[in-house]
Amino acid sequence: MHSLLRAPSELHLDDVDTSATPGFDGGKSEGQAALAAGADRLSELQERLFAASTAGENRRVLLVLQAMDTAGKGGIVRHVVGAVDPQGVQLAAFKKPTPDELAHHFLWRIEQQLPAPGKIGVFDRSHYEDVLIGRVRQLAPADEIEQRYDDIVQFERRLVDSGISIVKVMLHISADEQKARLAERLERPDKHWKYRPGDIDERLLWNDYQRAYELAITRTDADHAPWFIVPADRKWFARLAVQSLLIDALEGIDPQWPVADFDVEVEKARLAAS
Amino acid sequence: MHSLLRAPSELHLDDVDTSATPGFDGGKSEGQAALAAGADRLSELQERLFAASTAGENRRVLLVLQAMDTAGKGGIVRHVVGAVDPQGVQLAAFKKPTPDELAHHFLWRIEQQLPAPGKIGVFDRSHYEDVLIGRVRQLAPADEIEQRYDDIVQFERRLVDSGISIVKVMLHISADEQKARLAERLERPDKHWKYRPGDIDERLLWNDYQRAYELAITRTDADHAPWFIVPADRKWFARLAVQSLLIDALEGIDPQWPVADFDVEVEKARLAAS
Repeated sequence: MHSLLRAPSELHLDDVDTSATPGFDGGKSEGQAALAAGADRLSELQERLFAASTAGENRRVLLVLQAMDTAGKGGIVRHVVGAVDPQGVQLAAFKKPTPDELAHHFLWRIEQQLPAPGKIGVFDRSHYEDVLIGRVRQLAPADEIEQRYDDIVQFERRLVDSGISIVKVMLHISADEQKARLAERLERPDKHWKYRPGDIDERLLWNDYQRAYELAITRTDADHAPWFIVPADRKWFARLAVQSLLIDALEGIDPQWPVADFDVEVEKARLAAS
Repeated sequence: MHSLLRAPSELHLDDVDTSATPGFDGGKSEGQAALAAGADRLSELQERLFAASTAGENRRVLLVLQAMDTAGKGGIVRHVVGAVDPQGVQLAAFKKPTPDELAHHFLWRIEQQLPAPGKIGVFDRSHYEDVLIGRVRQLAPADEIEQRYDDIVQFERRLVDSGISIVKVMLHISADEQKARLAERLERPDKHWKYRPGDIDERLLWNDYQRAYELAITRTDADHAPWFIVPADRKWFARLAVQSLLIDALEGIDPQWPVADFDVEVEKARLAAS
C-alpha cells in the first residue's frame, strides 16, 4: 500500500483519484475490521516505544497531517491516534500564528511541540501552513516563501538525525466531497460549530491551494521524510492508510522491551519480605 | 454510586473494603458492558464541552488521580480517558519535581498544566504529592507541609471560581493487591520496565502513606472540590466508577451545542455557488 501512496516526483493532484483505495481490495466493512485489528498492533508498538524510552532509547515518531478543510484530520486523530494510550501521544494543533509566534522564525513554534522520546507526535497542520496558506494568501514575500522550502528540508533532516521518524500525510479529497461535507455541517445544528464562513473563502481558492500543495510536497519529499498522498473521500480508507503508515514507521524503529536494570531475583525476595 | 464513594468527614482507609463495588450490583462482565456504554455518553459530553468552548464558554473539568503504586492510574487514563477524543483531553503527569520546579512555590508547576477551556484535564499525580510523599519523606518542614493544605484549599477554590469542575479520586488498593501486582511486573519481562526497586521502599512505608492520604483528603475535601475513595482492587470497577464521576461532572456543566454566529441560509447559498 505504502509505495502506492508515496508522492511521485511529478505530482498532479488533479489526476489522483480521491475515492480510490490503493493497495486495499476490500470495501468499507473489511476496512473497518482491518482498522480494528491494526489498532491492537499499533497499541503494542506504541507501548514498546514508550517502554524503550524509559531505558534511554531516543526514538520517536512524528505524524504530520495536512489537508484541505473537512478532509478528515480530526477523524484520523480520533479514530487512529485515539486508539492508542493517550499517555504515549503528543498532539499539537497549529492554528493561525499569534503575534508572538509571528515575531519568531516560522519553525520556532514547531520546534517546541516536537514529540519527546518514546512519544508518537501528531501535528494537526504544521510548518507546511507557512508554504501553503502562506503562499496562497501571500502572507510573506515570494523569496521568503522560497527560502522556507529549504529551511523545512534542513529542519526535517535534523529531526531525523535526532531520532524522529517522520511521516507526512496529505489527506486528499475532491472539491465535490468537500462541498458535501460542508453542506452537512450547515444542515446539522450540532455541526454548526465546526463551520466558519471563512471556509468558503478558502474553498474559492481551491486550485491555488492544490498548486501550493504540489509545490510544497515536491520540494520537501525525501526518503527520510516522505510524503504520502492519501485519498480521503472514503474516510474508512484514509484512516486505515494512515494507521498502516504509522505501524510501518514504528516497525522500522522496532522498539524492544527494555532489559531490567535491577536483579529480578533480589527484587522478588524484597517484595516477598515486604 | 457517587455518594457512596465520597470521602467521609472521618476517613479511616483501613476500614474501606478495597475489593467492594459500592453502588454497582453486577460483576465484571456487566461492569465492562457498562463501561462501553458509558464511553459513548462521555464522548458526547466531551465533544459538547469542546464545542461550547469555541463559542466562548469557559467551563472545563479537572480529574485529579492519586494512588499508591500499581493502583491503576495508568489504566484509568488508558481505558476511561482514552475512550474520548484525544483532542479534547489535556493530560499531565507529575513526577519528581525538577530543580527548576523546586525553586518555585509547589503550585507553580500545577498552574501551568491546568486544562484550557473546553478540555478535560487529567492529572496523573498532582499537587497532592507535596503533602503525601512530601509528608512521609519529610521533604519540607512540618509547618510548611501544614501550610500547604490551606494553600491547596484556596487554590482549588480559585480554580472552581474560574470555571473548572474538580473531581479528586484516590484509587484505593490493599497492600496485598499491590504485592500481587508488583509480583506480576517482576514475573513478566515485558512488564519489567514498569518496576522500579524504589517501589519497595515506598511500599515499606505503606501505613505512613495511608495516614498521609487520610490527612490530605480530610483537610482538602470540599463540596466544590470533592474527594472520592474508589475501591480499586477490581480494575473494572475502578474504571467504571471514575467514568461515572466524570460523566457526572460534565452533566453538571451540561454543555450545549453553540448557536451559529453566522446566517445559515446565506452560507448555504455561498456554498452552493462555490
